[in-house]
Amino acid sequence: MKKEFFDNKIEGFSKISKEKKIDWIESNYFKNKPKSILKKYWNKDQSLQKLHDEFTENTLSNFYLPLGVAPNFLIDGKDYTIPMVIEESSVIAAACKAAKFWRGKGGFKTKILNFKKTGQVHFIFEGDKNKLFKLFDLIKPILLEDCESINSSMKNRGGGILDIEILDKTNDIENYFQINSIFDTVDSMGANFINSCLEQFASTLKREAQIYNDFDDDEKEIDIIMSILSNYVPECIVKAEVSCDIESITEKGINGVDYAKKFVQAIQIAKTQTNRAVTHNKGIMNGIDSVIIATGNDFRAVEAGVHAYAAKDGSYKSLTDVSIENNVFKFWIEIPLSLGTVGGITNIHPLVKWSLELLDNPNGKELMKIVAVAGLAQNFAAINSLITTGIQKGHMKMHLINILNSLGANDKEKEKLINFFKNNIVSYSSAKTELTNLRNNGF
Amino acid sequence: MKKEFFDNKIEGFSKISKEKKIDWIESNYFKNKPKSILKKYWNKDQSLQKLHDEFTENTLSNFYLPLGVAPNFLIDGKDYTIPMVIEESSVIAAACKAAKFWRGKGGFKTKILNFKKTGQVHFIFEGDKNKLFKLFDLIKPILLEDCESINSSMKNRGGGILDIEILDKTNDIENYFQINSIFDTVDSMGANFINSCLEQFASTLKREAQIYNDFDDDEKEIDIIMSILSNYVPECIVKAEVSCDIESITEKGINGVDYAKKFVQAIQIAKTQTNRAVTHNKGIMNGIDSVIIATGNDFRAVEAGVHAYAAKDGSYKSLTDVSIENNVFKFWIEIPLSLGTVGGITNIHPLVKWSLELLDNPNGKELMKIVAVAGLAQNFAAINSLITTGIQKGHMKMHLINILNSLGANDKEKEKLINFFKNNIVSYSSAKTELTNLRNNGF
Repeated sequence: MKKEFFDNKIEGFSKISKEKKIDWIESNYFKNKPKSILKKYWNKDQSLQKLHDEFTENTLSNFYLPLGVAPNFLIDGKDYTIPMVIEESSVIAAACKAAKFWRGKGGFKTKILNFKKTGQVHFIFEGDKNKLFKLFDLIKPILLEDCESINSSMKNRGGGILDIEILDKTNDIENYFQINSIFDTVDSMGANFINSCLEQFASTLKREAQIYNDFDDDEKEIDIIMSILSNYVPECIVKAEVSCDIESITEKGINGVDYAKKFVQAIQIAKTQTNRAVTHNKGIMNGIDSVIIATGNDFRAVEAGVHAYAAKDGSYKSLTDVSIENNVFKFWIEIPLSLGTVGGITNIHPLVKWSLELLDNPNGKELMKIVAVAGLAQNFAAINSLITTGIQKGHMKMHLINILNSLGANDKEKEKLINFFKNNIVSYSSAKTELTNLRNNGF
Repeated sequence: MKKEFFDNKIEGFSKISKEKKIDWIESNYFKNKPKSILKKYWNKDQSLQKLHDEFTENTLSNFYLPLGVAPNFLIDGKDYTIPMVIEESSVIAAACKAAKFWRGKGGFKTKILNFKKTGQVHFIFEGDKNKLFKLFDLIKPILLEDCESINSSMKNRGGGILDIEILDKTNDIENYFQINSIFDTVDSMGANFINSCLEQFASTLKREAQIYNDFDDDEKEIDIIMSILSNYVPECIVKAEVSCDIESITEKGINGVDYAKKFVQAIQIAKTQTNRAVTHNKGIMNGIDSVIIATGNDFRAVEAGVHAYAAKDGSYKSLTDVSIENNVFKFWIEIPLSLGTVGGITNIHPLVKWSLELLDNPNGKELMKIVAVAGLAQNFAAINSLITTGIQKGHMKMHLINILNSLGANDKEKEKLINFFKNNIVSYSSAKTELTNLRNNGF
């Protein structure tokens, strides 16, 4: 039986062993304390398991997400099979379909449009702002010099701090200013590097203000609110594109002209209707996040930056766009992506290393291109389904096996029902009905 | 050696066995074909492995993400240990810290503010729109009746289709209209249910238009562009809140009044600066997505809906807010969440079932509350670090073990260096230097 909540308060939980953690949890929260399923998910190679346990805190087991692949991608003339980690059925199938469709039409073309990241020191200064700006100009070399030990290895790799500037934000908040810093973090996502630089800027600024003779006593007390990178990266942008003659499209018996027209309407809707734009971009992120996770990147950072970018003009819009000119159908995405192929868990997680090798060990910019393609491909497949057969037919076909598994169908039953549903509409209740029929009567 | 790309085009890839897929990939893309690391990640229980293989297409292995837990959450007077799936170090530690902090101050309070989801049939109608609206009124009962077989089981569970309406969108796009439908999907996320209803609406609308005598021949040809749920759910909102007397806060030697003032400034910054708002909300999503994944929900859908909601007033803003009134510090989040505790993979993935049992098998609304709390807790911990010690100190301490693992440190070395870095600043290069020192000289 479960105990009342005050019994469940625990001190020093992080310090006890994994076994004891599981025992405490299952004793306190589970009705019939099971022989823990968690242990069935441990890797039998203890040192490999230890590696995974150490990624984060209070780790109890390995959560499985399917690692799959989508072959037949042609990107800038080079062949790729793209690794994807995704729990949602039909995402990988959609990627495969789009890859094949465009491979025959020249494949995907990509381009890095911009490559800058930023971070800010946010602070309050009460006093004469002209003096503050004068101080900043004076100490700019010192701010940079104090960061030299952090910055030097990034500089050696071809990046580093590109610039720092002071911004007057007093129109937004009383006495509020920023040091805005611009970075090139080369092949790393760069969060730790940027945050370390910013915290150093803050510390230097505070120190120099204290000894700046033109400041009065109040002005010397600069109040640092926080120093932190920005996951908003509208100047770290990659473009991916596909194009073909309209006549070369014949999908599901629809001719190229009608197909292209409908495709354009679908994009127009996603450019003007928030309701649709959100779902449209969600589909793009199905492709993007799958590759992000497989390559050890942080999907929360990418998601936040991407969706804020989609809203940058005051209303939330599609990230993809389309044009028809001189009978050429062109479809593209422009998307902000701050990714790494070194640092973080990229060099530690064995399956991340495998995924990166599968992609021919791309550098940061190459990975941006591949990820953008995965997003564009996914969006193409989604729109293609939506404007022809509808999304449910393909999706439910892929999801059918999950439904049958949740209903406890055995292999023979699954085979028979997958066959049955080739020509019938899939839903949870229809699958349940047919499984019952099969069990009662056979087909 | 790798082959040129045209060799790599493959037909029928999805049809070959998992072993053959791996063999083809590693022969074609890997320099020194390894004894595949993928197989080390297969579960030795074959039927369990098969279950996981069937989640999606072309599955080759199980990608491990750490499944951890954060104990000591007190939510609406009930005790929780929250399961979190996250690869980023320090997220779970931050959750634990916030849980403990607020447990002593009454814990988290939550409330469902609204619970409606929507989907749209997007269509083009060329003709007299008054006639179209008249038709819609006429066939509204038929539209609903045709959905009855899809809707009935959802109605039995207390939800279903709440309303349908026709919207004139011709100001946005020529001849463009929507059927907007509003749903209560109870304990399921509801994507398949909503999409099935919408595709039925589309089909009924098309059929009825064909036989509507008031329409001329052109008007009878309604062109359905697509039928799809919306992941934008601004009317499916949960609120979570914490509050305490300002005097009861003493964090890192800062008194409550100064702490609260700085906290308010941090939130003001996140409410007015896109740069900061994106990162601020990204931190919230660290907490939210961890629970979303552990409970088998779709984080891309939630991410898209949440960030678009953050931008709903024309500029992208913080999802959390704060107030100080009568000496009471109040901190809260209002966030759109469309989640399920039935359907999808919730009933299939054994670790999802474990996570849901750990949470006392919540219904959909209860899960919304727990997830919102995880987001608020994460944001509190982040701001707390940022405005006191800075984010890097805690984060790098947690990340140190990853750095040491990537440098190939053994257990003894790790122990010594973790001890050393208790009083020294962690960075990749400092860790590398100290490890080299240790190996060359001992300490």
